[in-house]
Amino acid sequence: MENFVYRNPVKVLFGRGQIAGIGAEIPAGAKILLTYGGGSIKTNGVYDQVRAALAGRPVAEFGGIEPNPRYETLMRAVELVRAEGIGFLLSAGGGSVLDGTKFISAAAHFEGDPWDILAQHAPVRRAVPLGAVMTLPATGSEMNFFAVITRWETREKLAFGHPAVYPKFSVLDPETTFTLPARQVANGVVDAFVHVLEQYLTYPADAPLQDRMAEAILLTLIEEGPRTLAQPADYDARANLMWAATMALNGLIAAGVPQDWSTHMIGHEITALHGLDHAQTLAVVLPATMLARQEGKREKLLQFGERVWGLREGSPEARIQAAVDRTRAFFESLGVPTRLSGYGVSADTIPLIAERLEKRGMTALGERQDVTPAQVREILALCV
Amino acid sequence: MENFVYRNPVKVLFGRGQIAGIGAEIPAGAKILLTYGGGSIKTNGVYDQVRAALAGRPVAEFGGIEPNPRYETLMRAVELVRAEGIGFLLSAGGGSVLDGTKFISAAAHFEGDPWDILAQHAPVRRAVPLGAVMTLPATGSEMNFFAVITRWETREKLAFGHPAVYPKFSVLDPETTFTLPARQVANGVVDAFVHVLEQYLTYPADAPLQDRMAEAILLTLIEEGPRTLAQPADYDARANLMWAATMALNGLIAAGVPQDWSTHMIGHEITALHGLDHAQTLAVVLPATMLARQEGKREKLLQFGERVWGLREGSPEARIQAAVDRTRAFFESLGVPTRLSGYGVSADTIPLIAERLEKRGMTALGERQDVTPAQVREILALCV
Repeated sequence: MENFVYRNPVKVLFGRGQIAGIGAEIPAGAKILLTYGGGSIKTNGVYDQVRAALAGRPVAEFGGIEPNPRYETLMRAVELVRAEGIGFLLSAGGGSVLDGTKFISAAAHFEGDPWDILAQHAPVRRAVPLGAVMTLPATGSEMNFFAVITRWETREKLAFGHPAVYPKFSVLDPETTFTLPARQVANGVVDAFVHVLEQYLTYPADAPLQDRMAEAILLTLIEEGPRTLAQPADYDARANLMWAATMALNGLIAAGVPQDWSTHMIGHEITALHGLDHAQTLAVVLPATMLARQEGKREKLLQFGERVWGLREGSPEARIQAAVDRTRAFFESLGVPTRLSGYGVSADTIPLIAERLEKRGMTALGERQDVTPAQVREILALCV
Repeated sequence: MENFVYRNPVKVLFGRGQIAGIGAEIPAGAKILLTYGGGSIKTNGVYDQVRAALAGRPVAEFGGIEPNPRYETLMRAVELVRAEGIGFLLSAGGGSVLDGTKFISAAAHFEGDPWDILAQHAPVRRAVPLGAVMTLPATGSEMNFFAVITRWETREKLAFGHPAVYPKFSVLDPETTFTLPARQVANGVVDAFVHVLEQYLTYPADAPLQDRMAEAILLTLIEEGPRTLAQPADYDARANLMWAATMALNGLIAAGVPQDWSTHMIGHEITALHGLDHAQTLAVVLPATMLARQEGKREKLLQFGERVWGLREGSPEARIQAAVDRTRAFFESLGVPTRLSGYGVSADTIPLIAERLEKRGMTALGERQDVTPAQVREILALCV
């Protein structure tokens, strides 16, 4: 096992009716900015529950944060935070709203150009405290300190992370997710599944507990994903998906083991260039990554095949191919295509994406830092 | 899944050499009290590492905290904290030292009789901040806010818990545990195993991720326990046991599911009366609990048998018996007897223990609050 430092102070309020308790979690007297996205919180009851929980308290609003939240939009919220003396940010929505809110939190009192937080990993010295009502099980943003932001004018999608932007609390009420479109639920299952694999499908580190916990999340997603898509208002199915998505990216299964994240890095470029949903890019890139990099990932691929898909027969090569096929079939069964052609994107994009990563200095991705631009091209060739 | 609130802010510093970093985790200027037990930290190198990490800083010492830490001893430390104006407590040792240090933390500024924290669950309003160097994988105390304290004069063993006594940090360096006696390591495996079962072996709550995470810890303990007993200086084996013991009782697998804890409550009385090690009492009471309460625990016993012990053949009754037998055999294989007779305790103790629990108002234990004094007697009759 590798050395690690683990700390996750997020208070999770999980279950029915938990929005009612958020008033007690926000410092008295703080001027609150409620952030949200396209307005679904106004039709699914979340907005009313939040306003009721904060009745009599000073609450400003900032709506319209997009999927793949945009720097340009968020900087308007930053102006508002500064002008209004906002003391607490409350995100109500999915991972994009929360990621955007984390950026607002870090940028509001940043000295210098806030873009440097993303482009230069400039240190965050002071953040506006934030909380979340999470209405979409997917990104895990509710229990981590990461955010991914897109600069629309330059088509750049970049990440940052800092403990200062951990949510003080996150409400996870499965009932608030019953009305989500099936596409978003399916995307959430894929997103969480790939988050686990980025931390699990590397090389053995003699960390059997982390391995089994990762497999526990994968098996739960395989079971609960189809169940919750078939019965969106089955409380327990949705609750299990929600908790699995949170556990997939709260740092726990990453403790003491190597991590990959090359699928995410390649996927971000596909979203930036072609507008695919984040999870769609992962569904495309992951199977190709598993095939192209099967030599370095051989032992974990075989373990994944055996423990997650029950593959015990045949040669190692056949079992690896079967594990990839089963994973691909799982994503497709959720309604998420796993080829670029499924989204109308041609092989022309391959050199563009490899170049963009190269330009950003991302020339040594993966758990062994051996995914070069040449291998990115090889992976993308398998995505067509 | 049941509603839950989960928050665990402990910073875990895991791995070789992590003690060297504790200086940065303790507020500058705070007068530190280093607490420890029988002095093993002076022979295993921990004391020297701690003193080196805190060189030049004001450090007082309080040694001699016993296994099953005693109220009478701890109150002497409380006097010291008050007299010396101690601002930070640093526990170096196993779960007993840390539990004792949590009590010192809560009692130092308590207004009234500190015994009420244990006997009356009096609220803790102010605690001295504390950190831990954990040298014994077992209790999970390093990542929770619970403590169990014994009052020697009245032979009472009572628990308390409060978020104010979460350690600010816990160092887990597997190398500091290489010199532990085999009996303590075996006890640690049993302790962690039973911690998991108190949170898992109840009734189904449609919480498959929590179930699988619990099973992940059990399987890891079954694998790594014997491995680390056979090779005490195998770093990874000891690291895996250590992390499994921490994960067994940091609140995570308890989130959203029912909990039992009757084995612990009965076990505490056996320790208080007869001086058995905590884990020894659990090894005795658990198999009897599984048998006596198999009706209410039927579904989870069958799941435990199948997923943890691979028991898929035979009638449900036969599989439940086999699951109990396998568990008992596992404890015995570690060198921990699973009958009262193995410790020279006779059936005469049965009415005494049932009466003591009754006197304390513990007349409705377990996940359904249906473990009455009569059932405690029934369970204990199976322990002889």
